Amino acid sequence: MTKIKVGVVGYGTIGKRVADAVRLQEDMELVGITGNTYNFRMEVANDKGIKIFTVADDADFKANNITPAGKMQDLLNAVDIIVDCTPKKIGRANKEKYYIPNKLKAIFQGGEKPDVGEASFVAQCNYKEALNKDYVRVVSCNTTGLSRTLHALEEKFGINSVTATMIRRGADPGDIHHGPINAVVPVLELPSHHGPDVKTVLKDLEIFTTAVSGSFTLMHFHTLVCEMKKKVDVKAVIEVFNNTPRVRVVRNAEKVRSTAEIMELAKDLQRGRGDMPEICIWEEAVGAHGKKLFYMQAIHQESDVVPENIDCIRAMMGFEDVEKSMEMTNKSLGIK
Amino acid sequence: MTKIKVGVVGYGTIGKRVADAVRLQEDMELVGITGNTYNFRMEVANDKGIKIFTVADDADFKANNITPAGKMQDLLNAVDIIVDCTPKKIGRANKEKYYIPNKLKAIFQGGEKPDVGEASFVAQCNYKEALNKDYVRVVSCNTTGLSRTLHALEEKFGINSVTATMIRRGADPGDIHHGPINAVVPVLELPSHHGPDVKTVLKDLEIFTTAVSGSFTLMHFHTLVCEMKKKVDVKAVIEVFNNTPRVRVVRNAEKVRSTAEIMELAKDLQRGRGDMPEICIWEEAVGAHGKKLFYMQAIHQESDVVPENIDCIRAMMGFEDVEKSMEMTNKSLGIK
Repeated sequence: MTKIKVGVVGYGTIGKRVADAVRLQEDMELVGITGNTYNFRMEVANDKGIKIFTVADDADFKANNITPAGKMQDLLNAVDIIVDCTPKKIGRANKEKYYIPNKLKAIFQGGEKPDVGEASFVAQCNYKEALNKDYVRVVSCNTTGLSRTLHALEEKFGINSVTATMIRRGADPGDIHHGPINAVVPVLELPSHHGPDVKTVLKDLEIFTTAVSGSFTLMHFHTLVCEMKKKVDVKAVIEVFNNTPRVRVVRNAEKVRSTAEIMELAKDLQRGRGDMPEICIWEEAVGAHGKKLFYMQAIHQESDVVPENIDCIRAMMGFEDVEKSMEMTNKSLGIK
Repeated sequence: MTKIKVGVVGYGTIGKRVADAVRLQEDMELVGITGNTYNFRMEVANDKGIKIFTVADDADFKANNITPAGKMQDLLNAVDIIVDCTPKKIGRANKEKYYIPNKLKAIFQGGEKPDVGEASFVAQCNYKEALNKDYVRVVSCNTTGLSRTLHALEEKFGINSVTATMIRRGADPGDIHHGPINAVVPVLELPSHHGPDVKTVLKDLEIFTTAVSGSFTLMHFHTLVCEMKKKVDVKAVIEVFNNTPRVRVVRNAEKVRSTAEIMELAKDLQRGRGDMPEICIWEEAVGAHGKKLFYMQAIHQESDVVPENIDCIRAMMGFEDVEKSMEMTNKSLGIK
C-alpha cells in the first residue's frame, strides 16, 4: 500500500496532535512538520524523530542541538497533502503563498473563514463533500461539537430550530498569556459566529447562538435548547447520543459532575496528552418539555478536531468509505 | 522470578497512579485495589482488568455492571505488601485495624504523621532505612521535592541552613470541591510543617519553611534560599541538578516559563496522565550571591511520590540495590 504523505504546517495545540495522530495511521506517513523558532515542542518532536523543516533561520535550532531536515519548501516538495494548523489568517496566506503555487492539497482549521476551502468538514455529517477536493476547512472545535450532536438529532427526530449558549474556556491549559482570569467576557455580536458556522456543515438547520468566555481552561461548555419537529422522549435521545460516533454520554452517577472530572477521566483512560476527542453529554442533564429538548455538552477544545483532520485527509485523497475511515481513526486514537 | 504481590488500598489521585506503576514493574504483580463506592475511577480500573475488592456494600458496583473480585480481607490475604493511599489519618487507622492483625507490610503516604512508619522515605536520600522494614511512610510531594534537591546540594557543597517558601496549588485539577478560587491563603503556623518533615529524611539539615495556597491547580512551587558552607558557582549548581535523579532542569530558553508549560511539556512527552514525576528547576532562576544560593522548583503534586512508592516496595521486600531499583522504576515510567 502506498502511504499518504502528510506534512503538518504549524506545530501548536492542534498541529502537534494532528502530527501524532498521522503517525498512528497505517495508511499515512508523517513526512515532517514546520518549525518557526526553537521551543520545548520542537525539542520533543525532535526527540520523537519527527523531521523539522524550518520557516526562517536555522540558527536558533542549531544553537539548541537540533538539526533541521530542510526548509519548508523541501517539505512541500515531498508531500501529497498539507494539514495547515497555523493561527487564523496565516492559513489563508499560506494557501496563496505556498499551496496554490505548489499545486498542493491543503486542509485548513476552523479559525479561517469558510471560503478558504471548497467545503467545511465534520466527518460524520458531510464526509462526501470533501472527496477528492484540493482545499477543505475542518471547522472549529465548537462547531464540530454542535454539528456532531445536532446532526444526530436532526437525522433521528427532525429539528425546527436550535438556541445554544457557548461558555468557552478563557485560554488553553498551557497558555499563560491570555485570559480572563477572573471575569466572564460576553461575545458582543448576536448571533455569535458559531451559529452561521454550523450552517456551513448542516446547511438547513435554523440555529441561533450566543457566547461568553469564562475563567477556566478545561473545555468549552454548551447549553442547548432544541425545538424538535415532534415530542421527544429523553430515553430515546440518550440512546441516540449513545449510538452517535465521537459522542460520549457521561454520568453524575459515576461522579463525573464537571469538566474537571471529564479531563480527569480522560487522563485515566490513558489517551495521549489526556485528550477527550469525544463530545461529552451529561445523561442527567438531558431534559424534555413537550417538543423542547434541553441538553448540555462539553467540548475538549484541544482535541475534538484531531480525528476530523485525519478523516479529512482520507476524503481529499479519494478514500470513499466514511465509516471505514472513522473506524480506522477512532481505533488508532482509542476512541470507542 | 517470584513477583512481589502488591495491593493498593485507596484509589484516588495517588492510588490509581501507584497501581498503574506497579503494573509496569517486571518484578511486581498488582493483585488488586480496594473500592469504596462506584465512580469513574472504578469504571476505568475495571475496564483495564484491575481486580476490585470492596470495603463496604457491593450493591453500588453491581448496579453499574462491575463484579468485585472479593472483599478487602481477600485482598489482604493474597498480597505481600499493601500500599495505603487513603486520605490522612485513615492510613493509620487501617494499620491498626488491618495491617498489624494480618501481619502485613504496608507503605503509608505523607499525609500520615511520621511515627506511622519505622522510617520516612525518599529513595535517593535514605533507601537503606526502609530495607526489610514492615511499615514505612513515603513523605509528601513537597517534602519529596525539597529532599531530592537539597540532598544533592548537601552532598556536593554542604549547606548551613535553608529558608523555603511553598506556594501550593489550591486543589488538584480534577477536584471541584476545594479552593481557594480567587485568593492567597497563608498557612498560619511558623514554621510550616514542611521543614520538620524534611528533617525526617535529611536529619541534620537546618531548614525553615513557610507556605501559602494559591488559586491554581497546576503544581506546587518552591522558592529556596540556601546558606551554603562555601561560595558556590551557578554553573556548578546547575550541573549538580542536571546529574540528580528525578530532577529536571527546564529553561525559559525552550519557552518553559511557567508551571502551565511544564504540564504541557509533560503531556507532549506522552507520560501516563501527563505526569511529571521529576522536580523541575528553572535554569535561569538559579542564582548565587556569596554563600547564598537561590533557586525555584515546581513539584507535580499528583505524581512525584509515585516512583518513591515503587522503590519503597522493593526496599521493604529486601531488594538492596537502590540504584538498580531507581533505574528499573525510572525506565518503566519514562523518567530519564
